[in-house]
Amino acid sequence: MTPSGTTSAAAGPPARDAGAQPAWELLLPAAGAPARRRGRALQEALREAVRSGRLPAGTRLPSSRALAADLGVSRGLVTEAYEQLTAEGYLRSDRGSGTWVGGTARTGRAAAPAGPGGPAAPAPGVVTDFRPGTPDLSLFPRAAWAAAQRTVLARLPHSALGYPDPRGLPVLRSALAAMLARRRGVAADPDRLVVCSGVAQAATLLGTVLRARGHRGVGVEDPGSPEHGRLFAATGLETVPLPLDEEGLRPGPLARAGVRAVVVTPSHQFPSGIAWSAERRGLLLDWAREVDGHVLEDDYDGDFRYDRAPVGALQGLDPERVVYTGSVSKSLAPGLRLGWMVLPGALVDEVVERKRTMDLGHPALDQAALAHLVTSGGYDRQLRRCQRAYRERRDALLTGLERHFPGTSVTGIAAGLHVIACLPARYGPVGRLLEAAAGAGVALRPLEEYGSARPADGAVRLVVGYAHLTPSVIDEGLRRTAEALGRR
Amino acid sequence: MTPSGTTSAAAGPPARDAGAQPAWELLLPAAGAPARRRGRALQEALREAVRSGRLPAGTRLPSSRALAADLGVSRGLVTEAYEQLTAEGYLRSDRGSGTWVGGTARTGRAAAPAGPGGPAAPAPGVVTDFRPGTPDLSLFPRAAWAAAQRTVLARLPHSALGYPDPRGLPVLRSALAAMLARRRGVAADPDRLVVCSGVAQAATLLGTVLRARGHRGVGVEDPGSPEHGRLFAATGLETVPLPLDEEGLRPGPLARAGVRAVVVTPSHQFPSGIAWSAERRGLLLDWAREVDGHVLEDDYDGDFRYDRAPVGALQGLDPERVVYTGSVSKSLAPGLRLGWMVLPGALVDEVVERKRTMDLGHPALDQAALAHLVTSGGYDRQLRRCQRAYRERRDALLTGLERHFPGTSVTGIAAGLHVIACLPARYGPVGRLLEAAAGAGVALRPLEEYGSARPADGAVRLVVGYAHLTPSVIDEGLRRTAEALGRR
Repeated sequence: MTPSGTTSAAAGPPARDAGAQPAWELLLPAAGAPARRRGRALQEALREAVRSGRLPAGTRLPSSRALAADLGVSRGLVTEAYEQLTAEGYLRSDRGSGTWVGGTARTGRAAAPAGPGGPAAPAPGVVTDFRPGTPDLSLFPRAAWAAAQRTVLARLPHSALGYPDPRGLPVLRSALAAMLARRRGVAADPDRLVVCSGVAQAATLLGTVLRARGHRGVGVEDPGSPEHGRLFAATGLETVPLPLDEEGLRPGPLARAGVRAVVVTPSHQFPSGIAWSAERRGLLLDWAREVDGHVLEDDYDGDFRYDRAPVGALQGLDPERVVYTGSVSKSLAPGLRLGWMVLPGALVDEVVERKRTMDLGHPALDQAALAHLVTSGGYDRQLRRCQRAYRERRDALLTGLERHFPGTSVTGIAAGLHVIACLPARYGPVGRLLEAAAGAGVALRPLEEYGSARPADGAVRLVVGYAHLTPSVIDEGLRRTAEALGRR
Repeated sequence: MTPSGTTSAAAGPPARDAGAQPAWELLLPAAGAPARRRGRALQEALREAVRSGRLPAGTRLPSSRALAADLGVSRGLVTEAYEQLTAEGYLRSDRGSGTWVGGTARTGRAAAPAGPGGPAAPAPGVVTDFRPGTPDLSLFPRAAWAAAQRTVLARLPHSALGYPDPRGLPVLRSALAAMLARRRGVAADPDRLVVCSGVAQAATLLGTVLRARGHRGVGVEDPGSPEHGRLFAATGLETVPLPLDEEGLRPGPLARAGVRAVVVTPSHQFPSGIAWSAERRGLLLDWAREVDGHVLEDDYDGDFRYDRAPVGALQGLDPERVVYTGSVSKSLAPGLRLGWMVLPGALVDEVVERKRTMDLGHPALDQAALAHLVTSGGYDRQLRRCQRAYRERRDALLTGLERHFPGTSVTGIAAGLHVIACLPARYGPVGRLLEAAAGAGVALRPLEEYGSARPADGAVRLVVGYAHLTPSVIDEGLRRTAEALGRR
């Protein structure tokens, strides 16, 4: 379930040893900085060294003890950096062989967040709606957005009110590229970033381009977001469900699927909540290169990590194969219809031309307002505010499940706006639970709605969204459901 | 060039006479109102009576003298109403046979404006750019828009920040429907109005739907907006150029084109500036019914009429065959990317579903701001302000052409943001004129760039945009061009 750093047969042992090693002390330029910043600097320097090719695949890294001594930092800081980069697929490690540079990273910079879920129609008579996909709309920073709008209208030159650049306002593309590189490790060149109306438009744009290039199908995660399938189907592509296990897409079915494009959610898979293992991330990119294919990375809730440093975006490992997409739908409001895609060089022109004919580009004033929010630090403040609120709600959900449905195990809790709750069989079958909940004015969504696999263990698996509900509403909704179930 | 009300062989003589006549006095409910308002009320009542079927096709109308006496109004008011409705195709008239109800109007209400032109890349070294397609961006009402944004952010319920209705915010659809009915006579049911990002997206949405329905091609006006062809081509439809004469699309080539859809600009044809004759409007709708086809009416500058009441939108004559589209690109700013389409009932669901997969709907805050501007009267004020400015600039252009290029004839002056200037052959050939202008820092666009027809009379035909240039800049640009030409 957690990222794994173990070797596989495919990974192979390290081929180069310390004889070819670079000057490790160059990795940590900010030697006088506080430990936290130095840890981050070390991670960034290592990542950059792998991407640039300065540390080629197979290079064996010093032991954490040795590097810590070389750099004059704590050993924990080096261990953390190794673990983080292993989780992201830049490094590989094995208990026996130490740590070495993986074979997956390609030149570029780093990757960030986007989002499935999408609009759920309100159900009549529902008091507490645990279905996933909606952020808390009351957290939208009205005052900050109003201030950004005022600033924009006061400063924007007249020319910026004309037909916009279909790629997006240059000032926003630069601001987003910097933000995505910093927050998500996206290799984000502003010239390859296209502002769009969100992940749905990104999928439609990519699907349309792939269809025109002769693609006939696209692989989607199973279980996965039904929206992905619907969007690609609308562009004329057949969607092929590809089974997941607890590490990510299973390589065999992927290889046999007959597609050259897949859409994935590797940082916090939707709906299962798993983070893909480093090995599976690497194998997916190997596959993409082999079939001359593309991966759409929907980083739908990369903004919301609660317990540890985020796993960097897959895109950072190979910007020429991965299309990265995200939006402000979870961080600000879906109603803004504002998102982005970061594209491989080979796809930029075709996607921009489709964006042009689709709508001539995104509204300019909203773009300028978001650029102001990002560069002024207001967007980071908003993310911290949401993160605090959502972590508190997640904790309330975990506590409430323990109180009202003892024995429930919960996964996918490290990030995002939903978890998977696995209720013991005694609360089932699922139909009975859903009916009891509905009778109590509570809407729940079973995991089986998101794919074909139904484990036969009798357990009841639910996808529980919590971000839009306050702690007391969460507890009350669970209590009412448990009571109603007890009366049956 | 002006709307013609003469009978044709196809129109036929009136079939019903005064024996079947309704109570004419019911046509003018506001009997005590001032003359101007009564004239408008009479036109609206007559239009509505034809549309509703209360005045069936062929019904002979009383003479203007008789109706004026019946209603107790001036004869001029009745004559004006007859002329206006004849221009719009609701009535037909003949010097010998009087006036009768035409056969083209179908049930519904009335139609409004949209816009070709689109973005023109700035040319290097250009001081004065007479190429059409750009409004004056400095006229964007920043204060009014900022006030609308403030109001919206202060009042909008949180729920309106969620995933929007893909058709558009209900409050905006109602406001636009009322505005389009009032200003352009569009039969605008809010349930058939879809908010989109402008005419380009409207064309892409319609093209995608028609392609999915099995259409292979779409007819475009020749000369016409090259943007129409490009947009439909991107949806996989072949574009078939259809020749125009001074009354509109020529019926023969249309019938032989093998298409079941056309895109037209009947109120102020782009680029020629003609208003289609009533007969041609009727024949186009007859054709659409016969082939079970559709017409996209791009009412790109219906907002800007200078000398007489606007010709009502074609859509009002048959809302089941005509897709009406317009935007705020000329009235507010292209950078807002905000427009609308009014759809036949049979196309609504398919277009809305495409809109949904294309971008999940238009940004909510901008929609709410426009709704506020329209319902508060601010949008009408803005249109009046633009109209005053653009009329003044048009007059400056006409004066300047007369001064610096005597002998030039100008057409298409009744509306819009451009005219056609036909310069005597002594200023040609066109290449020499364009070079001289470019040398003087003046960009001009010849009519021949918009289509295949090149008259052999040696005259130099230019499409001259003036809306974005002040009167002094207009005069100075023409003066410099004439001087540069004189030095050659």
